[in-house]
Amino acid sequence: MGTPPIKQKKVVDPRRIAGNFLAEIKRQIRDLSREVRLVSFLATNDPAARMYARFTKTGCATVGARFELREVKPLALERELHLANEDPQVAGIQIYYPVFGTERDAYLRDVISLEKDVEGLQSRYRYNLYNNIRFLDKDKQRKSLLPCTPLAVIKILEALEVHRPTPGKLPLSGQKICVINRSEIVGRPLAAMLAHDGGRVLSYDVDDCMEFDGTSVQEVEVPQEQAIAEADVLITGVPSARFGPIGPEQIKDGAVVVNFSSAANVSANITRKARLFVPRVGPVTVAMCLRNLVTLCCNFPA
Amino acid sequence: MGTPPIKQKKVVDPRRIAGNFLAEIKRQIRDLSREVRLVSFLATNDPAARMYARFTKTGCATVGARFELREVKPLALERELHLANEDPQVAGIQIYYPVFGTERDAYLRDVISLEKDVEGLQSRYRYNLYNNIRFLDKDKQRKSLLPCTPLAVIKILEALEVHRPTPGKLPLSGQKICVINRSEIVGRPLAAMLAHDGGRVLSYDVDDCMEFDGTSVQEVEVPQEQAIAEADVLITGVPSARFGPIGPEQIKDGAVVVNFSSAANVSANITRKARLFVPRVGPVTVAMCLRNLVTLCCNFPA
Repeated sequence: MGTPPIKQKKVVDPRRIAGNFLAEIKRQIRDLSREVRLVSFLATNDPAARMYARFTKTGCATVGARFELREVKPLALERELHLANEDPQVAGIQIYYPVFGTERDAYLRDVISLEKDVEGLQSRYRYNLYNNIRFLDKDKQRKSLLPCTPLAVIKILEALEVHRPTPGKLPLSGQKICVINRSEIVGRPLAAMLAHDGGRVLSYDVDDCMEFDGTSVQEVEVPQEQAIAEADVLITGVPSARFGPIGPEQIKDGAVVVNFSSAANVSANITRKARLFVPRVGPVTVAMCLRNLVTLCCNFPA
Repeated sequence: MGTPPIKQKKVVDPRRIAGNFLAEIKRQIRDLSREVRLVSFLATNDPAARMYARFTKTGCATVGARFELREVKPLALERELHLANEDPQVAGIQIYYPVFGTERDAYLRDVISLEKDVEGLQSRYRYNLYNNIRFLDKDKQRKSLLPCTPLAVIKILEALEVHRPTPGKLPLSGQKICVINRSEIVGRPLAAMLAHDGGRVLSYDVDDCMEFDGTSVQEVEVPQEQAIAEADVLITGVPSARFGPIGPEQIKDGAVVVNFSSAANVSANITRKARLFVPRVGPVTVAMCLRNLVTLCCNFPA
């Protein structure tokens, strides 16, 4: 007999899940016996970016990491990234987006060195993710990083025992999952990660629907309403107040529902039918950023 | 007394300049004494992409490289890129964009291995470009690649002796250059390259103006009409038939004018005042792709 499952309220407070991770990260940082410094660059007035910066600061204080917020102009950022890349005192680097709000932001993501990219957004990490390559080296000593928000969703599903180790099976085997958002930062990597773990994932963006299954991806024609109605796990991330909200009449009885958008994509009364509802994931995202920071310290000792 | 400059017609045919490169590349490929294979992936019906594919095929035939066009569906492309990356028979790989037409295309650019990326668009190459790092290794044995269209413009300016070696000076010292386009693929890398070579570059996109000078970049407020009127070298690349065309009354007497857009950004009668007018650069772009292919063969011998 294993540990009895923690009794869950229907509406899940992500701070509880984050708290468990933060406690573990705090122990790990203490064991490293050195200062662990995260430098975060803010080059925008976007309120969501500023809020993420505040939460990261609080998270760092909780786990005993040193946090430095550097506010710079967009054009000065590349130079500043170089300085931070080369500074042995800096363990992790992060940019709050948008900076230019164009494809140029993708260029900036790759200026951060692989050794310091806490967001796991470098090309090499993204390549590894889509190809289900879990280590950076052949000896499997250095873990490949995963992006913070998709990783947060996976860790939430683990904490809720939706994503669970099962002998002879993948942890999400047999689960129908619907993800509404296919951004390069969250929705697409998340769909791939869920499929690698055995889920049968339908991924929606405004234009079409893709099915992620194992490592294969194909375009399919499943109406979004049908995917929502059949999903064992429904994950929403539409960055618009005009979407939804999805109500209890639309979902499967007993579904697990997670919303990672800052907009309320899901109606608060969803729990009339949902088994569990996670209305936001932000605190776990911050915890995953700090977890990645510790992984970098282990991968690349000072 | 050096070689007398080749007498130029006012309207420059880029095929003449490309021809000189192709002859040199043909000799280099012969000297390699092995098959040099370029594999190009087409996953779009975009007519410009198909035209570029045809021109590349002709260029390969001219220089004695083997050309393979592989038409694939967008979702099959990543898998196909892996196969080509791993195939020792393939020396160079190219994608004709757009594939998805979103930020996801930037992801695909990084799936091509550094050893085979004839377009020079991999993150590592782009990073080296903006930081004026000309080699991949410390011993300076492996040249860093530059993207084909910006390189074509530089090579055209060299052929026209606008960009020329001068003792104790950078090749574009003292030249005022105006570039109208700041895409991540052409306009921005081109502005950086021109500035690294000594030009004082004003770079326009729809929103603003940036001055590139050496390796520094800053936002400035120079009206576009003024920059056009003062430019020694005017380079246009606006992908819209609604722009311009720029007429002779708008430019500096004796300016050199280069248009890399498929739209006619510049009026045909520009030569009333322009010293030289290059209405298109496509043939030199193809030659630079093949030149990069040879560089890859030298950098990474089979």
